[in-house]
This record gives sequence, structure tokens and C-alpha cells, in this order.
Amino acid sequence: MNERIKELKYRLEKNDIQAMIVSNPLNIHYLTGLTEEGTLIINKKENLFLTDSRYIEEVGQKLTVGDEISIVNISEMGKYDYENIFVLCNNVGFEEKYLTYEKYQEYMQLYQVNLVETEGVIENMREIKETEEIENIKKACKITDECFEYILKYIKVGMTEKRIAFEIEKYMRINGADGIAFDFCVASGENASKPHAIPTDKRIKNNEVLLLDIGCKVNGYCSDFTRTVYIGQASEQFKESYKFVLEEQEKILNELKPEKNIKEVIEPIYKDYKDREYEILHAFGHGLGLYIHEQPILGVKKDTNLKEKMILAVEPGLYIPGQYGIRIEDTVLITNEGIEILTNSKKQLIEI
Amino acid sequence: MNERIKELKYRLEKNDIQAMIVSNPLNIHYLTGLTEEGTLIINKKENLFLTDSRYIEEVGQKLTVGDEISIVNISEMGKYDYENIFVLCNNVGFEEKYLTYEKYQEYMQLYQVNLVETEGVIENMREIKETEEIENIKKACKITDECFEYILKYIKVGMTEKRIAFEIEKYMRINGADGIAFDFCVASGENASKPHAIPTDKRIKNNEVLLLDIGCKVNGYCSDFTRTVYIGQASEQFKESYKFVLEEQEKILNELKPEKNIKEVIEPIYKDYKDREYEILHAFGHGLGLYIHEQPILGVKKDTNLKEKMILAVEPGLYIPGQYGIRIEDTVLITNEGIEILTNSKKQLIEI
Repeated sequence: MNERIKELKYRLEKNDIQAMIVSNPLNIHYLTGLTEEGTLIINKKENLFLTDSRYIEEVGQKLTVGDEISIVNISEMGKYDYENIFVLCNNVGFEEKYLTYEKYQEYMQLYQVNLVETEGVIENMREIKETEEIENIKKACKITDECFEYILKYIKVGMTEKRIAFEIEKYMRINGADGIAFDFCVASGENASKPHAIPTDKRIKNNEVLLLDIGCKVNGYCSDFTRTVYIGQASEQFKESYKFVLEEQEKILNELKPEKNIKEVIEPIYKDYKDREYEILHAFGHGLGLYIHEQPILGVKKDTNLKEKMILAVEPGLYIPGQYGIRIEDTVLITNEGIEILTNSKKQLIEI
Repeated sequence: MNERIKELKYRLEKNDIQAMIVSNPLNIHYLTGLTEEGTLIINKKENLFLTDSRYIEEVGQKLTVGDEISIVNISEMGKYDYENIFVLCNNVGFEEKYLTYEKYQEYMQLYQVNLVETEGVIENMREIKETEEIENIKKACKITDECFEYILKYIKVGMTEKRIAFEIEKYMRINGADGIAFDFCVASGENASKPHAIPTDKRIKNNEVLLLDIGCKVNGYCSDFTRTVYIGQASEQFKESYKFVLEEQEKILNELKPEKNIKEVIEPIYKDYKDREYEILHAFGHGLGLYIHEQPILGVKKDTNLKEKMILAVEPGLYIPGQYGIRIEDTVLITNEGIEILTNSKKQLIEI
């Protein structure tokens, strides 16, 4: 049995939970490496992976004896087989943040057991990254940096946002990414004032902003990165705004280290925004890993401490409706004494 | 208020449900055209779209007075605002197939109301397509057919599955698709014996099969299409298998028409597979629309009738582990007297 499953069992036992039904594909990936559809049962007597005939062959090739996970074809499972699985358990955990209400009801019927909420036990484990996970994210960040350098040369006035977004994706895939980490934001001019704008057929033109929020995946692990550039010569007002966002981002980065309370990091930033009457449209950052938005969230109400080997995206933004938007974002690793910045593209305002 | 929301209200009232919380983004898209994150409240006095500051500007630009949907910024909602929403309702519907157990508990707290399951009321509406929806799917199918013609000329021995998958996506996007409808299956040789194989770095070589399961989206609506070609000259055994799959697909297509019972269509196909001792690794087809897998499923246990204006993907397959896999799939529209096939690429075995 691998270390992650052992750690999960330990954490479950501490909460008087004897077994767990894992349904979230990212959690299954994290615990087993499997990306096939199915349900992972972590149990006292035996761990099982319940899947269907479409995946039996692949899963059989991937799992080894050392994994100590038996593969079960659900078409061969009868009513009593399900009921027998948890016969030695009082409490069986499930993922209340993932399982649908319908599936929860179905599990109750099927397993005839006391299902208890696990409060994100696996997501909590995923907050702290292991060496191999960090390496994957570093690779994804490197591809993202290189891609940004490439795309700056590629961008020409008259291109649509969609074309630029596609060229970014193409570059990432050709250069070693499994795929994109999320739907990119490639937003020009006033489109950039919407924090989650999706690429449109709008053509970029002179004297407007271009915001690129991009990231890719390597072995399932994400990078997250934003730069805001100006097409032409930026106005003084825009430069002022840009300077503000950059300074706030640097302020956050300078405060990040193990055992630092998130609320304490964010409070002065929050105050800076409020003092200038700037609206705060989203959190200042978030964890990332197998999923692009993980715990912890960098928000003013988040009263928890940072830990070594967390990976965070730090992304303050400023949005002036109908005019422009600015966001600067880097992916960083919390080290034993501070941070290592994993995306290293230039942050001074680029005018192209 | 639009016709879809009116129809939904009518269906809810028939089941003594006075209001509904719509959380599934595809259902919100279907009812309102919105693709932004948020929650749609269908209510007696007033319909609401609850969203956050990231999306307020976009949503405001998209909705018109005629939509009769008020936009609400959740950051301005207090405890009593939530409780007041459903003050005139006994039963409020929710999407048990979509909502997580945690969100269900949260809604119970927040809205202080009797939540009832809606049994896929919106998904059921989505089974029957309107003219505009059919047009979108037809466009997606046309792009897919043209893409298949293009890719046949592009494929060369030595290319990786991943490269072919990416070229297909590129063609679709350049030629009018919003994006891909699902993660493609581009599987060569024995990889094709896994029905849901994802593209790998394996290079295609002479004397093996190549299975392409592809589809794109137009205005959010999907196409779904599979062809299996042979690189080089196929063996007699392979040709026999191919002939079997093609004949079974034609048999299904010939039986599809309004009011026909799905079970009755599939039973003889099921028998053909059983007679030859072929394993059945997946259903013989499924509905599609905004989502790639919708109701109805074409399975031997599905005791419901087809209806005019359903759109289905019909996809029998045959998988010989360690050797090859064959699948032939078309997207079809149920017309008043039979079907219109929307993907029209050649189905006779292609050897390249």
C-alpha cells in the first residue's frame, strides 16, 4: 500500500472512520495514479477499485501487486456483494463536497452503512506537495513562462483573442504539456475589466490593454500565471493602476512564509484597496495542484497558517468597468524560509 | 419570460413544486443563454440570477428586460434575503443529480425551505431539441465530417496519437467550432481495444487499426462521431469484425423512429452479440445536446419510447483485448417518420 493511502487511513482512524468511498477522480488520481472512471474503496480488510468493462483492461495494466488494490467489475457485483464490503465498519466516509445528493442516496441504499462526511480529508492532504508533485508544477510553470515569451512575439494588432488563446494552447501542448490547466482568459480592451472573460472574436487593436491568464498541466499538475501588457503606449492613469497592482502583488509575496497567518498577510492589502475605493472582485490567490483552485484561498477572512510545500497562485487584480483590467499572477512554492517563485516572467509593464 | 422557463414552470406546478433552484451550468445555459457562474432561481414572484462580482457586468450586458430575470450580487445578500426568496412556496425543487451533498445541506440552511427532488425535469425538456438547437448540432456534425476527410489525408505512419488528436482539434477550432465536445479517443493498434483510450505518444504504424472518436461544439451543442480505419491492408478476420459492427449499426439506424421502444430496438442487437459471445463494453448509443452524454441511453433495459426531435449518437463497438477495437458512430435526428443522419462520412472500411 502506498504512503498516501496509509496516511489517509491514519487520518480517517483518528476521526473514528473505518473506511472511505472515494468518488472524486482527482482524489483517486492522487491516491492511486489512476485516471480511469471508477470508485475507490479504502477499507479495513481490502482496498477495491470498482469500475466497468470499459476500463478493466487499462486499470489492470496500471496497478501492481504492491498497490494492494483489487479491481472489481461492477457488472459482476450483486446486492449482497455491496452490503458485504463494509461489514466490519461503523462509519464509512464519503466526499460531501463531491458526491451528488442523488449518489449519496444511492450509496445509502447500496452499501447499507452509516455514511459520514470526511470534511475534505484528501483535499487537506493535497495542500502540502511532495517532491514529485512540485517537480511537475515547476515543469508546467517553465512551459508557461516560455510560452509567454513566445506569444509576445506572436501577437499582432488585428488578431482575435480566440486566435491568441489557441496559439498559446498549441505552444504548450507541442512543448510538453498534457493540456491546458483551465479555460484561458485572453481579454483585450474593456473585455479585460471582466475578471473571467473568455476569449472572443474581438480583434486586438492599438492603445488598449491585453490580459493573459494562462496555465498548463504536466502529469496532471497545473500552473497558473497572468500578465497584463499594453498594445501601444500606456497612459499615465494606466501606468499608475499597473504600479498599484504590481506593488500589492509584491507586498503579498514578501509576506509569504511557513506559519504565517493568511488573514494577516491579506489585511493590509485589503485596506489598500478599500482606501482607494477599488472594488475587490476576487480573492488574492489560491492553492493549486491537480486542480487549478485548491485550498487555501488567500482571502481576508482566512484565519489559517501557511505551511512549507504549499503551492499558491498570487493574483491581485484591478478592474475599471468599461475601461480596462489589470492582473498580475505568479505561482509560488512556500519554502522553509519564504517562497520560491516558479513563474519568472518579467513583471514590469510591457508595451508592445 | 422565455418559452423554456414557462414550460419548466408548467412542469414544476404539475408536480406541486412552486419554485426551483437551478445550479447545473448547462441547465442555466439552456434556460437563459448565460454561461457565467451563478445560481438561477425560478420563482412565483420573480426569477433571479445570483452571481458574484466577477460576473455582474457580463450578465448585465446579456440579459434583457424581456428575460424577466433580476441579477443579484450575492455579496449584497443577507441571511433574511435568502429566507425571503421562497416565502410563498411549500416545495422548492433542486437538482439532485447535480447538487453535491454539501451544497444540499447548505441550501437547507440558507433558504430554510422544503427542498424536493425534480427528477431531471430540465434534462427531460432537453431531450427534445428545438430548431435552433438542431441547427447548431447539424453545424457541429458538418465540421466533424469535413474534419474527418481532412485528417485522413493528414495521417501518416510514424505520427503519434496525440499529434493526430491535436490536429483534429485545431481543424475544428479554425473551421468554426467553439471547442471540442469531449476528450477525443485516437487509439491505434491494441490501444483501440480500450473503449475510452486517451491519445498517447504511441506512433501509428503499418498493419494496425486506428480508431477516431471525435466531436466538436457549436454554440455549446455537441456532435459525436467515430470511424475506425485500417493502416495498410486489413486481415480477413478484421474485415469480418468490421462488417459485423457496421451491420449492427445499420440495424439500429433502420429501426429508429418516433414512438419506437428503445428496448425493442436493442434486444436483437444484444442477442447478436451474445450469440457470438462478444462482450458488450458500453451502451449502443445515447442522446446528446449541450452535453455529450444525455438521455436517453440506448440500452437493452431502457423501456421508453423514442420521440421526434431527439438527437442520438448510435455507436456499437467490438473490442478484442490485446488485438484491436472497432466502433462506428453517427449522430442522428429522429424525424417524424424515421431518422436524418447528421454525420455523413463514408462507413465502408477505409484502408490507408
